[in-house]
Amino acid sequence: MAGLKLLPKRKERLGDQLYGQILEQIVSGALTEGDKLPSEKELCLMFEVSRPVVREAMMLLQADGLVVARQGSGTYVQRRPPQGLIALAGASDVAGILRCYELRVPLEGEAAALAAKRRSPEQLERIKTALDELTRALESPASAAAADFAFHRAVAEASGNDMFVSILETLHAAVENSMTLALNITAQGSAERSRRVLDEHGRIYEAIAIGDSDAANLAMRYHINRARQRITEQQSDV
Amino acid sequence: MAGLKLLPKRKERLGDQLYGQILEQIVSGALTEGDKLPSEKELCLMFEVSRPVVREAMMLLQADGLVVARQGSGTYVQRRPPQGLIALAGASDVAGILRCYELRVPLEGEAAALAAKRRSPEQLERIKTALDELTRALESPASAAAADFAFHRAVAEASGNDMFVSILETLHAAVENSMTLALNITAQGSAERSRRVLDEHGRIYEAIAIGDSDAANLAMRYHINRARQRITEQQSDV
Amino acid sequence: MAGLKLLPKRKERLGDQLYGQILEQIVSGALTEGDKLPSEKELCLMFEVSRPVVREAMMLLQADGLVVARQGSGTYVQRRPPQGLIALAGASDVAGILRCYELRVPLEGEAAALAAKRRSPEQLERIKTALDELTRALESPASAAAADFAFHRAVAEASGNDMFVSILETLHAAVENSMTLALNITAQGSAERSRRVLDEHGRIYEAIAIGDSDAANLAMRYHINRARQRITEQQSDV
Amino acid sequence: MAGLKLLPKRKERLGDQLYGQILEQIVSGALTEGDKLPSEKELCLMFEVSRPVVREAMMLLQADGLVVARQGSGTYVQRRPPQGLIALAGASDVAGILRCYELRVPLEGEAAALAAKRRSPEQLERIKTALDELTRALESPASAAAADFAFHRAVAEASGNDMFVSILETLHAAVENSMTLALNITAQGSAERSRRVLDEHGRIYEAIAIGDSDAANLAMRYHINRARQRITEQQSDV
Repeated sequence: MAGLKLLPKRKERLGDQLYGQILEQIVSGALTEGDKLPSEKELCLMFEVSRPVVREAMMLLQADGLVVARQGSGTYVQRRPPQGLIALAGASDVAGILRCYELRVPLEGEAAALAAKRRSPEQLERIKTALDELTRALESPASAAAADFAFHRAVAEASGNDMFVSILETLHAAVENSMTLALNITAQGSAERSRRVLDEHGRIYEAIAIGDSDAANLAMRYHINRARQRITEQQSDV
Repeated sequence: MAGLKLLPKRKERLGDQLYGQILEQIVSGALTEGDKLPSEKELCLMFEVSRPVVREAMMLLQADGLVVARQGSGTYVQRRPPQGLIALAGASDVAGILRCYELRVPLEGEAAALAAKRRSPEQLERIKTALDELTRALESPASAAAADFAFHRAVAEASGNDMFVSILETLHAAVENSMTLALNITAQGSAERSRRVLDEHGRIYEAIAIGDSDAANLAMRYHINRARQRITEQQSDV
Repeated sequence: MAGLKLLPKRKERLGDQLYGQILEQIVSGALTEGDKLPSEKELCLMFEVSRPVVREAMMLLQADGLVVARQGSGTYVQRRPPQGLIALAGASDVAGILRCYELRVPLEGEAAALAAKRRSPEQLERIKTALDELTRALESPASAAAADFAFHRAVAEASGNDMFVSILETLHAAVENSMTLALNITAQGSAERSRRVLDEHGRIYEAIAIGDSDAANLAMRYHINRARQRITEQQSDV
Repeated sequence: MAGLKLLPKRKERLGDQLYGQILEQIVSGALTEGDKLPSEKELCLMFEVSRPVVREAMMLLQADGLVVARQGSGTYVQRRPPQGLIALAGASDVAGILRCYELRVPLEGEAAALAAKRRSPEQLERIKTALDELTRALESPASAAAADFAFHRAVAEASGNDMFVSILETLHAAVENSMTLALNITAQGSAERSRRVLDEHGRIYEAIAIGDSDAANLAMRYHINRARQRITEQQSDV
């Protein structure tokens, strides 16, 4: 990692900043798969940050599958995200976007489970309409994020618990942000990738339609987790 | 159910209102365990509400374990909550309070799982301090809700994801409200009940301390679900 | 449902037999989507079986998404499985096969989660080899079930807990049976369907490789649940 | 760890043997809380076993909460199990017993969830009878394991899926073994501890009785996980 220009900026959460800078090294190829990262102590010195900040950044890079820690040996680069990632989102924004998915997996998984038990015929109809809208929108990613959000909102509404809708509304900007990023990455991928994104939404709808709450929970959690993973996967992964 | 005075009030969500009125009948003993509720059609007429409103109320009463639907036969009263419940919270507030738990189970379960993986030694220390505080506070329920909230907030902070803290802050009033109700009901119960509430918190702390994220998730979900159940259980249930 | 020839056979579990006979009516088109099924009482008379047997069969048909119960109205046909289903498996075997998936979802989900935490490099290599084998085998469904089983066995082995392997071995015949059925249905479907089956296995492998136990659990549960659903889905569903 | 007599025996799985020997050191107090364990390399030499065997043993000790690994620093003793543990079960059996719980958590959790959805009135009655039996039996631990197994078997039967019963039967010896151990440890503890074990079973019964499948799943998973934890907890933990 000699010769890296790791310039500590002064804004936002320090852990996210450091996360962003290491991410940039990985995306640019300055650090490649299998490379060993500097030790905690070295990272503290290089970036003039405290140990807890380094630990936080490393933990999050690990949670996102970008690096892997091997007991008693050190931390290694594990996966190189697509080139366009940094162009599409600021490097330090990526940390925040991936954190948003962590919240959505349990939250929307539960909303989908409740929707399978409680949706009225009208609510189910609205989820179906949102799904059709999303099918059309996926051809032009600009409008797809709004259609995507509308689908997830319709599911939350069908949960029979307004608090799920309120939370999703609170997160509106962050969620649509992450959807735009995810859909842009999808759009740069194969047509197959778009079909899978649609298929994932279709499974959620079906499970809610037949009232299978476990399947609805599972399909929603799987979908959001896949969306999170796609952000850091090479497009060749499909 | 002849002779019941079911007066539809004009405020808040209609489903919660109807929920509250049926709940009052059950708590007061006007409807007792095993009694059959009027049919959907009859409830619509009695309360001058639409069918979806009746369905919503019935679904939530069922989710809370107060009534049970028997296929092709009708809906029956299943459990009589403690007498003091309506005195402690308005009857129609109870619906909202129980809804809050539905959200907290997946949300805080995930926060606890992440905390087990990511908490710094300082964050763990803060969870321990909050636990000790709660132990003392349980002797005077007035201050216990604040101590209880502080414990849950410390866990969310240790998740390494600020969004969990933000959501909990957003829910502050609703959550502390439900804690006050739950702790008051606990305080009216046996000393054994208080010990169990403490034990549940202790398990969450322990799982986070040893870094077992599945156990932490499980202990938190179990605790919140038990708190929700205690609200509608007779104290003799312990 | 007049004119149906529902001949109660005398073998195996009565509930599975009745399940099989109603399934045959749905597959053959004698009962079509939206049709109302006879009442519990009528079914008892038609098939000369007791009420618990009818209830068991209805519950399982519902769990498999084939029929849906509407509160206070009755039970309706919800989905027509592919024509070939009965040809590929005996009608009353289908119930048993779908029951096997219910067990595998939690069991193998946990095995995958443990594998993500504990697999040695050699065990991971064996999972990869099994995945490559499956990729080749999917072109000739005859051998695909064996390759599919080998993949699932390799994951169980990597769990570091021999009991997961023992149980899978105990279930060998039943599991390979269900895989053969599922893969035959897949083979009659589009090439897209085969790609998805492979993709699902790929996700499990990846999550184990990067050590993400929650993602591994989720990917395995999703895969097995999808396999179960594909058995009763029309091929046009993809 | 100087002066420890670590005698590699020749039987069963090597990982479980090594696990048992380190466990003995911890139980006897030769290794106390906070002590650092020898490195992987040293353990290989001390016990004349290969690296994968050491890794397996360390991973399982960690999963059981007995030791904790600190990134880049080493592995430390975290918890001292009750003195009587080794007397009650052979040291190397403990590893196998704890592995059995790993399987039971997802398996019986799912069985309880299905039981909440499907149990007939007769099946529910049988679960209640088993619970009453267990209440009586807890006063004489000798017969309690059989009563405990009968309760878990009755839940599996109520799942409407015979495979859950078959698996539990297959595990009969191992499960009753672990129950005997857990109940003996409970019996050596306070009366409070016995009340909690009963309370946990009571929660499972109640959730099944009111048909709440999520609560049943949660209560069963929590109970089995607690049983597993109690085996290695000091009795003062309650």
